[in-house]
Amino acid sequence: MPNLLDKINKPNDIKNINPQDYKKLAEEIRTFLISNVSKTGGHLASNLGVVELTMALHLFLDFPKDKLIWDVGHQSYTHKILTGRKDRFPTLRQMGGLSGFPKRKESECDAFDTGHSSTAISAALGMVKARDLKGENNRIVAVIGDGALTGGLAFEALNNAGRLKSNLIIVLNDNTMSISKNVGGMANYLAKLRTNTKYTDFKENMENILTQMVPGGKDIVYRLKRSKDAIKYFMLPNMLFEDMGLTYIGPIDGHNINSILTALQNASRVNKAVVVHVITKKGKGYVPAEKHPSRFHGIDPFYIDNGKTINETKTETYTRVFSSALINIAKNNDKVVAITAAMPYGTGLSAFKKVFPDRFFDVGIAEEHAVTFAAGLATEGFRPVVAIYSSFLQRAYDQIIHDVCINKLPVVFAIDRAGICGKDGETHQGIFDLSFLSHIPNLVVMAPKNKWELEDMLKFALVHDGPVAIRYPKGEAYQGLAEYREPVILGKSEIINKAAKNSGNMAILAVGNMVKTAVSVSEKLKEHNIDSTLVNVRFVSPVDYDMLEELSKDHNIFITMEDNVRTGGFGQQVSDYICRYNKQNIRQINISIPDMFIEHGDVTELYKKYGLDADSIADKIMKELGTIK
Amino acid sequence: MPNLLDKINKPNDIKNINPQDYKKLAEEIRTFLISNVSKTGGHLASNLGVVELTMALHLFLDFPKDKLIWDVGHQSYTHKILTGRKDRFPTLRQMGGLSGFPKRKESECDAFDTGHSSTAISAALGMVKARDLKGENNRIVAVIGDGALTGGLAFEALNNAGRLKSNLIIVLNDNTMSISKNVGGMANYLAKLRTNTKYTDFKENMENILTQMVPGGKDIVYRLKRSKDAIKYFMLPNMLFEDMGLTYIGPIDGHNINSILTALQNASRVNKAVVVHVITKKGKGYVPAEKHPSRFHGIDPFYIDNGKTINETKTETYTRVFSSALINIAKNNDKVVAITAAMPYGTGLSAFKKVFPDRFFDVGIAEEHAVTFAAGLATEGFRPVVAIYSSFLQRAYDQIIHDVCINKLPVVFAIDRAGICGKDGETHQGIFDLSFLSHIPNLVVMAPKNKWELEDMLKFALVHDGPVAIRYPKGEAYQGLAEYREPVILGKSEIINKAAKNSGNMAILAVGNMVKTAVSVSEKLKEHNIDSTLVNVRFVSPVDYDMLEELSKDHNIFITMEDNVRTGGFGQQVSDYICRYNKQNIRQINISIPDMFIEHGDVTELYKKYGLDADSIADKIMKELGTIK
Repeated sequence: MPNLLDKINKPNDIKNINPQDYKKLAEEIRTFLISNVSKTGGHLASNLGVVELTMALHLFLDFPKDKLIWDVGHQSYTHKILTGRKDRFPTLRQMGGLSGFPKRKESECDAFDTGHSSTAISAALGMVKARDLKGENNRIVAVIGDGALTGGLAFEALNNAGRLKSNLIIVLNDNTMSISKNVGGMANYLAKLRTNTKYTDFKENMENILTQMVPGGKDIVYRLKRSKDAIKYFMLPNMLFEDMGLTYIGPIDGHNINSILTALQNASRVNKAVVVHVITKKGKGYVPAEKHPSRFHGIDPFYIDNGKTINETKTETYTRVFSSALINIAKNNDKVVAITAAMPYGTGLSAFKKVFPDRFFDVGIAEEHAVTFAAGLATEGFRPVVAIYSSFLQRAYDQIIHDVCINKLPVVFAIDRAGICGKDGETHQGIFDLSFLSHIPNLVVMAPKNKWELEDMLKFALVHDGPVAIRYPKGEAYQGLAEYREPVILGKSEIINKAAKNSGNMAILAVGNMVKTAVSVSEKLKEHNIDSTLVNVRFVSPVDYDMLEELSKDHNIFITMEDNVRTGGFGQQVSDYICRYNKQNIRQINISIPDMFIEHGDVTELYKKYGLDADSIADKIMKELGTIK
Repeated sequence: MPNLLDKINKPNDIKNINPQDYKKLAEEIRTFLISNVSKTGGHLASNLGVVELTMALHLFLDFPKDKLIWDVGHQSYTHKILTGRKDRFPTLRQMGGLSGFPKRKESECDAFDTGHSSTAISAALGMVKARDLKGENNRIVAVIGDGALTGGLAFEALNNAGRLKSNLIIVLNDNTMSISKNVGGMANYLAKLRTNTKYTDFKENMENILTQMVPGGKDIVYRLKRSKDAIKYFMLPNMLFEDMGLTYIGPIDGHNINSILTALQNASRVNKAVVVHVITKKGKGYVPAEKHPSRFHGIDPFYIDNGKTINETKTETYTRVFSSALINIAKNNDKVVAITAAMPYGTGLSAFKKVFPDRFFDVGIAEEHAVTFAAGLATEGFRPVVAIYSSFLQRAYDQIIHDVCINKLPVVFAIDRAGICGKDGETHQGIFDLSFLSHIPNLVVMAPKNKWELEDMLKFALVHDGPVAIRYPKGEAYQGLAEYREPVILGKSEIINKAAKNSGNMAILAVGNMVKTAVSVSEKLKEHNIDSTLVNVRFVSPVDYDMLEELSKDHNIFITMEDNVRTGGFGQQVSDYICRYNKQNIRQINISIPDMFIEHGDVTELYKKYGLDADSIADKIMKELGTIK
């Protein structure tokens, strides 16, 4: 029997597949996904869960005329396979290769770039209004997970979708999970919809009473069922969506293509926003992923036969250092509590949860709420630690200002994935945090040089009388410079190396993870007989003006280094110092990420590409020094 | 009969008032509010609406042990009266005077500083968890309007409240309005709850069928009512909240103190989050405010007898200029659409709505959705203009990055209330926008010097191939410099005055509204025989490096002026230029708002206080020049 996937080479090719072969095609897609992701790494469990759903959507829709918006977008692999991109899978998430998320640049079948959660319904509503204003009639479908539904943006969109008078299909892909187990009232509600037994029991019970025990009861049931309100009553569990003004269809078996197709066709006939509730299983068809969907959410290359990671790294990550340090501090301070927005594993807080279940809060994908909730805890004397990735914390910018910093509340932000963090690309790089945090009044912004400093900073932050942000990168915690462990004092940087008098006029001021790079840079410079002072900046806000003043006495070259975009970053704070205090003798070289979105790829390669590896930096310094000598 | 208000001098004093006098006290409070706000200006309609609700809350709660969190907080005047602050009302919203919002600094009865919408339930949940962890038993109440309920943050909080196992009271203050009429599926749902007729009809109908037409029907109704599920059924309209895991009590007449008290007492006995749905009337008791609640939302001093504003300003505001300009452009381009987040009047879009009802979208208090919705429209060829105040746009920082700028979609942000905008204080000043927007790749950031330039910039923005932000202040549009109307070209600033060769070495680079001030400054400097070049910056991003390079040839003093905080602002971009290109001959003086939250007060006074008026700036320049001459 020929390979069905060979026939899928461009959009809509799936429509030529014989319906009796759908099942086999689904199998081939799963085999393809497992085989490829086992080599490249990537998102697996979520993609295995939506194979049939994606196939049904592609049978139902006409690409690219119709629009399909994937919320978050990491579950779009089958969509990519079905739109002529299967040959690019060996390059998945590599520099210049296939993105792990929908990209309009990549295909006209990708209607909207995603990456963060809960955006799809809003974007789809925009497309619906555009379609209606243009008088066109293409179909628009948003696919959103039950996890993404806990994000406020999704609710804002549902609230607006409730008054829509033309068709929008919202596929609720319900797998009972975010990256971890989903939480909250909505999750409980969906659980009720899924099982439906309680309501069904009551409904049947009611019908039984009427039809069996009451003369003429059958007729009553008939009349009840016919009246508009009664229909609502007999579909009780749909009330939440229906009350919001949405039509509800479901629950549908998300691994039965025909059922999904029928539901989509029915949904497309309604001149309203329709929620099609589809139940899927994360990791479907691959036992290790079915058993451990969280581990197979995003995974490195693995052995297919047992699901084990091929290059199991035993390195100590900053995440793990943070996790252990926080637990240790919390043992001696019962006011320390920890908050995550649906990322207990990624942030390292799952360990905290085990030790202090009552002091751990997973609020769902709800970064805004996480921050304001922390503010509430802090008003009552607690010391909340909110652990959110750098790029996701962008969501809570106003809450940091409005609820934490205006109130000057002692909330600690543990910001993982700062700097370029690689394969997820534009949407996930943590390259703006210094720029969006440094200008917020009352907020202390720090970055540790190595594992011990992260511990020390966390200790400092948890006794500081006000809000503190600590940002650190993905991956291995730097173990160098272990002997440099000056006490952390508000606004004070740390000297790692002081150039010998008369031999060096250069000071390197490096932020956080760039200290490691700066050590290499200064070694390289030494090979050219350039001695340099090395400063670990520690505090990006407040800036250590005393140190700058001290350095300015016997240095006339300041090299600033940070893994943040140039605009609004630490380097510009130093430029400000130079201009403010009229230090016309000082030449500054600002090493930072260019003001642009950084694509996906290997972290090391990306740093090299953008000139932030030690070699590039040393070269740049040598070159620039040449021009001013 | 003695004045009852005289007896209210400190928290909990209301408990000594004889219940039969409650009605009279409410009247006195209303008279007090109308009399004071008619002189000072302030929020009126919302405060008149919650007099009885606030009284009931103060009878129910014990301050400061119990916690009361006002969402948005502009409706907290009666709360302030009842907590010993009535004598300060003549200073309301004035510099050094009583704040128009809850302030922890002002009273220990203010549990949480608010100003932006939809934060109260999140903060209250934090306080509940703190209480429970401490093993205390104080009461915690959040008061949130139906408008604020359209904000995603409120939903995130409700979703988390749904799994609470201890008491939290959420008073839903339902007046069917945000600042304008409330919108969306939730609003429709609340309308159903309020009127309740449809459901009541059905319920009664059902009961009638069973009891009257069916032998033994009475018994069935009895049994149905007793079963747990049936209770749900017989309370159908509560389903949305109940489905989320919340207990619902209501609707309650919000002007009947005894009804509210009973509901609060019942609510406090439930070990869950309880929604107490209270119906109030905005403007209650003052006819002009009842008739025009939007106009009396926030109002300048007015005549009590007719409600007319005392100093009716006939000035042309930037808001009005934007409004007319947008309508004119939209007449010739049917792809132009406009979006507001519940502020059709404040943003000036209500006029657009009248002309183009189909191309106008009010999404409710939902800034995040507004931006992502706009992105969706833009993908389909439309040119959405999203009009949101500067401080509220903070809410959508991630959506601007993730949905608009990564996608490089041509969305225009019309940002009103930029700079210090006065009496609402810390939460409402628009002093961070240049800092949080300038570092976003692909985003053009502009600020007009006068009314004509706002028009020209809007025209430019609506043909530019990418996202554009235009920020302008509250109040009168500058009508000076009418003759300077160079075409707007991407990244190009405009020279207003070029100092005569050899006579001047100073260049003033002013952003937006500061150009007006800069004109005065340069005149003042001229009095001291200092000739200066004046540049209208126009583009904060991208920075006009060509202009800086040109200026650097014959100027050695750059004065930068902006109504934004220093960190991350335009001035630091110029410092960066100076350091980057090694312009050691240039001295920069950076005039900007200090890095701090700016309190409430008169705009002119505040600019003076922070050294941003023409006199202060000229003085500062003279002083600094003295030091370097």
